Amino acid sequence: MNNSHNLKSLGPFFQPESVAVIGASRAAGKAGYNIIENLKRLGYPGKIYPVNPRATRILGLAAYPGVKDLPETPALAIIVLPPGQVLKSLRECADRGVKAVIIEAVGFGEMDAEGARAEAEITELAGQAGMRVMGPNSVGTINPYANFDSSLGRLKKVFLPRGGIEKGPAAFIGQTGLFTGVYLPLLNSEIGISKIACLGNKCDVDESDVLEYCGADPATKVIAMYLESINDGPRFLELARRINKKKPIIVLKSAVTEGGARASATHTGAVAGEDRVYEAAFRQAGICRVGSFEQLWDVTRAFVSAAPPRGSRVAIVNLAGSGCVTAVDACTRYGLQIAKLSPATKKKIKALYPDWWQVSSPIDVWVAIEASGFEKTYTAITRAVLEDENVDAVIAVMGANNWLDGKSVPGLFADIRRDFPQKTLLAVSMPGDRKIYYRMQREFKDIGVPCYTKDEDAVASLAALYRYRQYLNATP
Amino acid sequence: MNNSHNLKSLGPFFQPESVAVIGASRAAGKAGYNIIENLKRLGYPGKIYPVNPRATRILGLAAYPGVKDLPETPALAIIVLPPGQVLKSLRECADRGVKAVIIEAVGFGEMDAEGARAEAEITELAGQAGMRVMGPNSVGTINPYANFDSSLGRLKKVFLPRGGIEKGPAAFIGQTGLFTGVYLPLLNSEIGISKIACLGNKCDVDESDVLEYCGADPATKVIAMYLESINDGPRFLELARRINKKKPIIVLKSAVTEGGARASATHTGAVAGEDRVYEAAFRQAGICRVGSFEQLWDVTRAFVSAAPPRGSRVAIVNLAGSGCVTAVDACTRYGLQIAKLSPATKKKIKALYPDWWQVSSPIDVWVAIEASGFEKTYTAITRAVLEDENVDAVIAVMGANNWLDGKSVPGLFADIRRDFPQKTLLAVSMPGDRKIYYRMQREFKDIGVPCYTKDEDAVASLAALYRYRQYLNATP
Repeated sequence: MNNSHNLKSLGPFFQPESVAVIGASRAAGKAGYNIIENLKRLGYPGKIYPVNPRATRILGLAAYPGVKDLPETPALAIIVLPPGQVLKSLRECADRGVKAVIIEAVGFGEMDAEGARAEAEITELAGQAGMRVMGPNSVGTINPYANFDSSLGRLKKVFLPRGGIEKGPAAFIGQTGLFTGVYLPLLNSEIGISKIACLGNKCDVDESDVLEYCGADPATKVIAMYLESINDGPRFLELARRINKKKPIIVLKSAVTEGGARASATHTGAVAGEDRVYEAAFRQAGICRVGSFEQLWDVTRAFVSAAPPRGSRVAIVNLAGSGCVTAVDACTRYGLQIAKLSPATKKKIKALYPDWWQVSSPIDVWVAIEASGFEKTYTAITRAVLEDENVDAVIAVMGANNWLDGKSVPGLFADIRRDFPQKTLLAVSMPGDRKIYYRMQREFKDIGVPCYTKDEDAVASLAALYRYRQYLNATP
Repeated sequence: MNNSHNLKSLGPFFQPESVAVIGASRAAGKAGYNIIENLKRLGYPGKIYPVNPRATRILGLAAYPGVKDLPETPALAIIVLPPGQVLKSLRECADRGVKAVIIEAVGFGEMDAEGARAEAEITELAGQAGMRVMGPNSVGTINPYANFDSSLGRLKKVFLPRGGIEKGPAAFIGQTGLFTGVYLPLLNSEIGISKIACLGNKCDVDESDVLEYCGADPATKVIAMYLESINDGPRFLELARRINKKKPIIVLKSAVTEGGARASATHTGAVAGEDRVYEAAFRQAGICRVGSFEQLWDVTRAFVSAAPPRGSRVAIVNLAGSGCVTAVDACTRYGLQIAKLSPATKKKIKALYPDWWQVSSPIDVWVAIEASGFEKTYTAITRAVLEDENVDAVIAVMGANNWLDGKSVPGLFADIRRDFPQKTLLAVSMPGDRKIYYRMQREFKDIGVPCYTKDEDAVASLAALYRYRQYLNATP
């Protein structure tokens, strides 16, 4: 499939002009009800056509017995039927000329041999009809830029009781429903969503198709993926190499153990390949590989907020001496260097301490806090190390506690962040008080500084930024 | 030093009958002010003697010019003076017959050669006078069972704005002030504190002394340690072997890289040994080693709440198919087995799904939730797998979302936890909404179930419990 055709054919999965929901339901909590409820709640501006042979109205909308009865050919059909009814429904879509279908029904290749045969028929039918099919076993898509959401979870009641979905910079693509479900509030508030696609069994639309789409999507600045398998390795890597030059790609590849691969076969029917092969290929394509969902968020937040550093020399400004030790352990493990501070920088820093103190790197600030106060200590030292030409990146480590009697700690860093756009600044706020931590994390995000719970997470994310810079430098 | 003498001599560090604060200050925020403020706030019932040659009253208490002027010999003296004045003050303590001193002053072995020489004198003086000295560079101790706190951070204003310190089961010992400072609210609310000791440079009282003390402390059930070095390896390991039979010991050993070891030298003046030697020795002594503070909390919470499993067969009840894959990857990495469910168990589980569903292990519950609801699905399946004699431990994985319209999810598991005291139950609640997550974590803790943010953390903690069980089984 050539590029422009793929991009065009994927459009309706993210911003369709009209949607048919096949298997629409009047029962709150059923998938065929939730999808319509979610679309209405997000203010989706297109036509919604519930399809159900035993209903005339669903959620206030006229319902139709079949796809053939609709007043127009919908740009997208979403099928949420029991697995035995899916193929018949898909044929009706093909007959009606529907060009994009999401099959959110489950019970196919991930279930048994019969399901795998049905899936093969879906692929064949899609090819014959020139129809793009996402799924089966997909959990839908979300595009906040088009007020569009095809996911089947109960967004408002279960996942987003406190608000809607905002426009953001990161695309989340993968073989999991967690992106449109459980993790949705986190992605929305802590990172910012441009597109989400939960691919399911990938019988037609696969990770490469959506990667290419998000690569060309102006709203998407960073691409985060969860993959159990890759359908077409060479195509995926070629796309990744090209897209990585503009937009960093971060991948959580699971099914890396034999047991995990067996579990994947019963989840999305995927057959996982040799892990070391993935590792090497990802590295060559400049893909940042992570080991868990939490790391996927960590690194994605780094790419969303921070500039990749020009070198590997890190200054660490740390509340605790023990933190200086653990941060250095982490830097050593991740291939970063502790910056050697210039005499001028050391002099500026020493002014904040009692006379007998000797400045070393990492910078242990507790005694300075006692002598000069929290605010002056962190702002003066962070500024001093950012000004030092021996420093490429700074990790400011503090605690999520009530340092300024209720006043915002991240606010201290807003000017500093603006004054040093060429340098990389990350924050760590050890979660003493979790509520304070998440408030600080949000406030740091708002001023363009990613914030982490522990030094190792910040160091790992900084190392990912640095490897990305090296990739950019090495590829013309 | 023989055991009973060490235990007796350490008593005043945790429950002294009276305390002198040498370097007491009238300036809010100074260490010599904070210590007194903290003691008063916690309702410490003993006498507090501020020592300051230029004050008559501090925080409402009579102040004294020197230790020799006190109306009685204090059970404990806390020194918070500039480094140059410490030795003189310590000699005065010795002359007065003080038997326990915490030196919270900094600027010794961690700073320079002169500091190291002063530290050697401290050690010598302590030995001559039969005086126990914690520090220098200690950040104090906390014992909620005696309303005692010698730490120098501003507990109320900075670290605990929302309440006091409760009695709990876990001792935190180590070369860091983070336990009495930044992390205090977390330790208090998420785990529960029996004792805290921030050891500093360990010129006399060291990790073995306090390990022995906490091993004999009836309030302490689990011991968590942060160590950059070990003063007396053979003694530490012998103590650990003995205490581990009753109380699990979890250690975060940092300074494991060359850079980290250099940083440790400027933090607590410690000289770190070869990491592989520690690794092997810890394993032989049944010590659970972790790699970060977050893992230290994770594993400690497991030991506080959960029974070590009798075997390695784990049933995983998972909201997401992708979670089944990542959890199996984690089990494989950590040496645990996915349980093979009995036909009777599978039959009970299948009843919650549509007809066409086939039950496999791990158990992917999303389709059951759609068919039977969240509450019935989780309670029936968790109960079914706990009843299965092929299952030693269960990890119930869900999301931190509004599943029950505001009703408590952990509450569903209270009866189940009570009904299966011989089996190990852990929860994972992927943090969709962080506020909901931490509420769930607290509620799970209250019913005796440790709760984690990701499957890998639960699996790693379960593996630690299992290794501990194996250690108990292997040592008579």
